[in-house]
Amino acid sequence: MPSISRRGLNMPESPIRKLVPFAEAAIKRGIKIIHLNIGQPDIKTPKVALDAVKNNNLEVLSYSRTEGAESYREKIAGYYANNDIHVAAEDIIVTTGGSEALSFAMGSITDAEDEIIIPEPFYANYNGFANATGIKVVPVVSHIEDNFALPPIEEFEKLITLKTKAILICNPGNPTGYLYSREEIKKLTKIVKNYGLFLVADEVYREFTYDGREHYSIIQEEGLEDHAIIVDSVSKRYSMCGARIGYLVSKNKEVIKTAIKFAQARLSPPTYAQIAAEAALETPKSYFEAVKEEYVARRDILISELSKVEGVVAARPQGAFYCIAQLPIKNADAFAQWLLEEFNVDGETVMVAPAAGFYATAGLGTNQVRIAYVLEKEDLIRAVYILKEALKAYPG
Amino acid sequence: MPSISRRGLNMPESPIRKLVPFAEAAIKRGIKIIHLNIGQPDIKTPKVALDAVKNNNLEVLSYSRTEGAESYREKIAGYYANNDIHVAAEDIIVTTGGSEALSFAMGSITDAEDEIIIPEPFYANYNGFANATGIKVVPVVSHIEDNFALPPIEEFEKLITLKTKAILICNPGNPTGYLYSREEIKKLTKIVKNYGLFLVADEVYREFTYDGREHYSIIQEEGLEDHAIIVDSVSKRYSMCGARIGYLVSKNKEVIKTAIKFAQARLSPPTYAQIAAEAALETPKSYFEAVKEEYVARRDILISELSKVEGVVAARPQGAFYCIAQLPIKNADAFAQWLLEEFNVDGETVMVAPAAGFYATAGLGTNQVRIAYVLEKEDLIRAVYILKEALKAYPG
Ligand SMILES: Cc1ncc(COP(=O)(O)O)c(C=O)c1O
Ligand SMILES: Cc1ncc(COP(=O)(O)O)c(C=O)c1O
Repeated sequence: MPSISRRGLNMPESPIRKLVPFAEAAIKRGIKIIHLNIGQPDIKTPKVALDAVKNNNLEVLSYSRTEGAESYREKIAGYYANNDIHVAAEDIIVTTGGSEALSFAMGSITDAEDEIIIPEPFYANYNGFANATGIKVVPVVSHIEDNFALPPIEEFEKLITLKTKAILICNPGNPTGYLYSREEIKKLTKIVKNYGLFLVADEVYREFTYDGREHYSIIQEEGLEDHAIIVDSVSKRYSMCGARIGYLVSKNKEVIKTAIKFAQARLSPPTYAQIAAEAALETPKSYFEAVKEEYVARRDILISELSKVEGVVAARPQGAFYCIAQLPIKNADAFAQWLLEEFNVDGETVMVAPAAGFYATAGLGTNQVRIAYVLEKEDLIRAVYILKEALKAYPG
Repeated sequence: MPSISRRGLNMPESPIRKLVPFAEAAIKRGIKIIHLNIGQPDIKTPKVALDAVKNNNLEVLSYSRTEGAESYREKIAGYYANNDIHVAAEDIIVTTGGSEALSFAMGSITDAEDEIIIPEPFYANYNGFANATGIKVVPVVSHIEDNFALPPIEEFEKLITLKTKAILICNPGNPTGYLYSREEIKKLTKIVKNYGLFLVADEVYREFTYDGREHYSIIQEEGLEDHAIIVDSVSKRYSMCGARIGYLVSKNKEVIKTAIKFAQARLSPPTYAQIAAEAALETPKSYFEAVKEEYVARRDILISELSKVEGVVAARPQGAFYCIAQLPIKNADAFAQWLLEEFNVDGETVMVAPAAGFYATAGLGTNQVRIAYVLEKEDLIRAVYILKEALKAYPG
């Protein structure tokens, strides 16, 4: 019998996947689950995007250009220009989700055994792409005590080796909700320039910034043209995760030329999704204002409810829609499973994402969970109530 | 300045891409190009598929399941059952095109430096996926003289090393049009079982078989359950290349479990495309009969016209919609470029795919081109006429 590859065996499972059978069993027992564990927004997709697909007149659903439809790339450049980011259509490759942009970026700038430094906790699928690409993720710890701000630059420096090819940040962060300041970006600029590294920024949550704070993109930083690679996505921006459209953006012509070769191998990004995403660019500003207002209200309620629970410490997110909470328990994996297997309040329980899966360093984050506030406010209040009761009842 | 990876530098360009600037320049000069170079069918997408998307009622375009929508996977199993292929929904992963199924398959069964044996000429993007995955393609030559039939099994045996993990075939073949017989599949079965290898079959053209011949899938072969991995796609079957939906199919549970981990990292296949592809399964039989009839008529005309051209030898395809033709020239790359740069008949010229790009062995196929017969019959006649005149006029 032929055998699975080592890379296949080492491919990490999503931190939530392990809990799925327990969730399914709970549902079978008639338990209602409030999902705090998923990053799928409940917000409606802009009508203009949905309508564009409903009204399409295609007769042959053919491949689009490898780099994405020309008209769409032009409009994306326009979108960035409105956000004070100056890139041309030819600096943009349309990808199948931000996910594919990440894998093109890793493929273009790393060889097997190379290293990428990433502040942890980080989006768990970076591990999957790194493993598939055969490279090593080198974590640098950020801390809940300071809201997961950028670790001191000396911590990065300590980790740089001859194999280091890039620093990867997520801004604003999943799972941290932290928004890097202009000063933090400048510090990163200095170090990548000093050491000749790429700086990859996953900016898929760029529109989700709160409390009057503005997102500062690495591509706005002067002198960083050859170093900066942006990963972007329409998934969360327009609540259209199922479209599977993202972008890789760089002013480094060699990076674009190389990433296009990876893109050619898979032919083209999805056509219907590009129609939806192109139309989504016409979404009225009022949509985003309403969405932002909603997320801020949800965050405020979540944080304030959590703060009332004995022994819970929560970060204060300034962006995205995630929050890391530290719980008065030892092992969040076991707790999350127990919540599904053994606990309920009047037939309801909650599902959380244990945070250890977002750390690369073993032993970190074991008493933390990630909460996604993509639910109605009442549900968030109820969820925190259930969590509070659960912590009282938990034997672990 | 940070540098591109070796893997990025080595990433092959599509064999047609080099010609694109010359084609663009020709169009600017007012030349009309008949495209014999692309595998994008001109056939209309089934209305039932297009309508399903137009009539969708989604309000939130959310991620689907990682493995593809449950209802869709059930129906795919039904489609296979109708084709005498017995697989369950859980043996199927819905992917973003057959392309992604190929890359999940390679990732699941090979580590860096491992080898996959592939009869050449083969679909050029196998090189791209192999390079991205860090593995080596080991070609075994098939010949135009016998229509690109399976090379003698001893030729495969000579190439097997400790690093060989799989044999990959394309059936029916792009670019050869060759359809493997049941006996050929049985020979492959024996060798992969003897040596403990996987057998990966790219069956994206499975519906396109002519002259009363039937496709025999590797998954129909008894005893091959642990070895067989199928790559399939809706792209050509329903002329919906732009959907970006394919499947990986295997009865080997470890393969499926592993491929799902790769799939999780990229979250989900596109949602609209799954709606279209699920509906496409309702396409009436008459659609396929008409399409097949059309392709047979096109093939017959193409072959008969080519046979009239002095010095041209063409393979006789029994499947797919490609044909390799050997031309009385030295260098098909230079010829293809010359056709675009220097030649026209009454303002018209043809674009062909030089076949060297489909061979891994340097020096093979240099006097061959691949012709895709995805054009109306009159256009094919006209194209071969232009090719004939070009061969007379060609100074090279
Ligand atoms: C930080 C981050 N990056 C990238 C992605 C990938 O998203 P997509 O492929 O849908 O664009 C996600 C999705 O949750 C994410 O949270
Ligand atoms: C032999 C073969 N395999 C796989 C593919 C990939 O097709 P897709 O990703 O559109 O399913 C193609 C496309 O031309 C092909 O010819």
